Amino acid sequence: MSPSATWRGSKGTPVSTVGEFGLIARLDDLVAEGARRHRLASDCVALGIGDDAASLRPSPGHELLVTCDIQVEGRHFDPAWISPHALGERCATINLSDIAAMGGIPRAAVVSLGLGPDSAVEDIEDLYRGMVDRLAEYGALLIGGNVSGLSSGLIVDVTLIGEVESGRAVRRDGARPGDLVWVTGSPGSACAGLELLRSGVRPSQQPQWASLIAAYLAPVPRVPEGRALAATGVVSAMIDTSDGLIGDLHHLVERQQVGILLREESLPIGEALGEAAIKLGRSPLSLLLGASDDYELLFTVAAGSAEQTVRALEETSKVAVWPIGEVIADAPGQILLEDRRGSRRPALAGGWDHFRSA
Amino acid sequence: MSPSATWRGSKGTPVSTVGEFGLIARLDDLVAEGARRHRLASDCVALGIGDDAASLRPSPGHELLVTCDIQVEGRHFDPAWISPHALGERCATINLSDIAAMGGIPRAAVVSLGLGPDSAVEDIEDLYRGMVDRLAEYGALLIGGNVSGLSSGLIVDVTLIGEVESGRAVRRDGARPGDLVWVTGSPGSACAGLELLRSGVRPSQQPQWASLIAAYLAPVPRVPEGRALAATGVVSAMIDTSDGLIGDLHHLVERQQVGILLREESLPIGEALGEAAIKLGRSPLSLLLGASDDYELLFTVAAGSAEQTVRALEETSKVAVWPIGEVIADAPGQILLEDRRGSRRPALAGGWDHFRSA
Repeated sequence: MSPSATWRGSKGTPVSTVGEFGLIARLDDLVAEGARRHRLASDCVALGIGDDAASLRPSPGHELLVTCDIQVEGRHFDPAWISPHALGERCATINLSDIAAMGGIPRAAVVSLGLGPDSAVEDIEDLYRGMVDRLAEYGALLIGGNVSGLSSGLIVDVTLIGEVESGRAVRRDGARPGDLVWVTGSPGSACAGLELLRSGVRPSQQPQWASLIAAYLAPVPRVPEGRALAATGVVSAMIDTSDGLIGDLHHLVERQQVGILLREESLPIGEALGEAAIKLGRSPLSLLLGASDDYELLFTVAAGSAEQTVRALEETSKVAVWPIGEVIADAPGQILLEDRRGSRRPALAGGWDHFRSA
Repeated sequence: MSPSATWRGSKGTPVSTVGEFGLIARLDDLVAEGARRHRLASDCVALGIGDDAASLRPSPGHELLVTCDIQVEGRHFDPAWISPHALGERCATINLSDIAAMGGIPRAAVVSLGLGPDSAVEDIEDLYRGMVDRLAEYGALLIGGNVSGLSSGLIVDVTLIGEVESGRAVRRDGARPGDLVWVTGSPGSACAGLELLRSGVRPSQQPQWASLIAAYLAPVPRVPEGRALAATGVVSAMIDTSDGLIGDLHHLVERQQVGILLREESLPIGEALGEAAIKLGRSPLSLLLGASDDYELLFTVAAGSAEQTVRALEETSKVAVWPIGEVIADAPGQILLEDRRGSRRPALAGGWDHFRSA
């Protein structure tokens, strides 16, 4: 990650000098080289880039998982803050995280690019390298895509296909009263990192904020963690925290006859998040719960199975995991927050809304 | 198709009043209603819209096909010319055509939308209805997607998953010397239709151009034709003509030890195309061969199997099919055009290039 890197932009080779098919040929070579470099067994790919459609061989006994996510310059990322390679990694991560949240195995991705006239071929190659590298870390190949011109800016839309053993996908809608609610990692860090960047902090000059800023710019998908959780067979619901903790807690209870009670004292507010809250003049709780770009896993499990579940996670991963509340029957569709004195209030609605916030 | 329809734009319900999740909920309802209306057997979909990823059950003995295509306002479509519903159909068709060109069966699509602030909820619903309806005509379901704000304009990126019997996908790279080259339909019509629109022709006022303009605005994917051709087992290569006849002929020979000889007298220049050429001050040949948005099928087959192939096609479809040339060994990588006197010249390079033409 080098968030202070500037893009080549018009100082690089303009895409117009190589043309659409020239660019595609360079990207194809780069993808093939990446697959060799990562020694990826591509036995699931019958036909990669270069035909009307790519072709995959599904694994027997598995279902397919499909997810897509469009990332728009100026909305989801700022080229002043993130290098092309790190952006490519981030675009892959966002989709890998969705497959992780189903308990799945990432397999293959296609990408659509929209490129403004100032796009430099070298930047697009770096972006692709970032995607190819990050996908390869989790066993997935880039197998196709297409590009279009735009009047300005950059748009990256990745569709990722994964697999999961038939009937074993972990859905959002399985939480039952009495289940405990857990979350991995340090939710709120990405939100704090973004706010710090917006306030003018640059990690190269202020390294004390680097971990929070890295949480925003260079998130890691919880793929092995999602697999380990799904393999226990006892996780009742799972989702990633891409819409913020409160937003995604709402997704777990919407159209369900359950609510969720969060215990304020159990929420993981680390030292860095606390200090960032002071610097930003925000409450740590609003950073933890609010609009966010975390890609942590939020899951529910029956109390009696919690120990087994956490042990399975700890055998796979060093990521921290926190019990933050429980599923309740008496407030369907609601997220309540209980303070240290036992008094309950609705947790603030939050989460990122592309149109309301725009 | 109603190309003269104006969009509601800022006169409709702004997306900001319903928000991202409100819009998604309305689109989800519309997709569910569409599946019921079309009585689509969704037994291949284990989990549709509403989770981190959708889930599909692959058919035993089949490979998956994956394709994506990004459509950008002002590059690929002009809202003054095409209604939201017709645009949705067109976005689906472009991807259906790629699955058709592999000989595949369309199954399921995901869509990423980028919406400018003037987008009206009703327009986006019509766009979705167009996609859902067109996909359903060919047996495919919309199973997921995501939306983002844009500073302006509209972007639609569809990823379509299909299936084909294992090992039976028809690739681009199988043409052999002596094979005959065939094309379906009326290639060049879409290019002529686009040029007519650009020259100010409106089909509501000048119905004599309606068929050419419809070829551009409302193309039909050749899905049953692609299946019938693949089922013969003798089609050696196939591609759709999305990059224009010459562009796609080049795709058939690139990196191959073959060329293609087109016979000018065999090229299907119909009455409407001939008249459009006169009106536009273009040669009919340049319309037929040049940059294009046709979604016809271009395929090669050994001369001895041609009759069987054409019969299979005629049993499935009323679409015309034309033998336009043959695969030759003595001009590898080249497309030659033979005139009525037997003299040969390289056919003009053409095809749409998003960066060079921009």
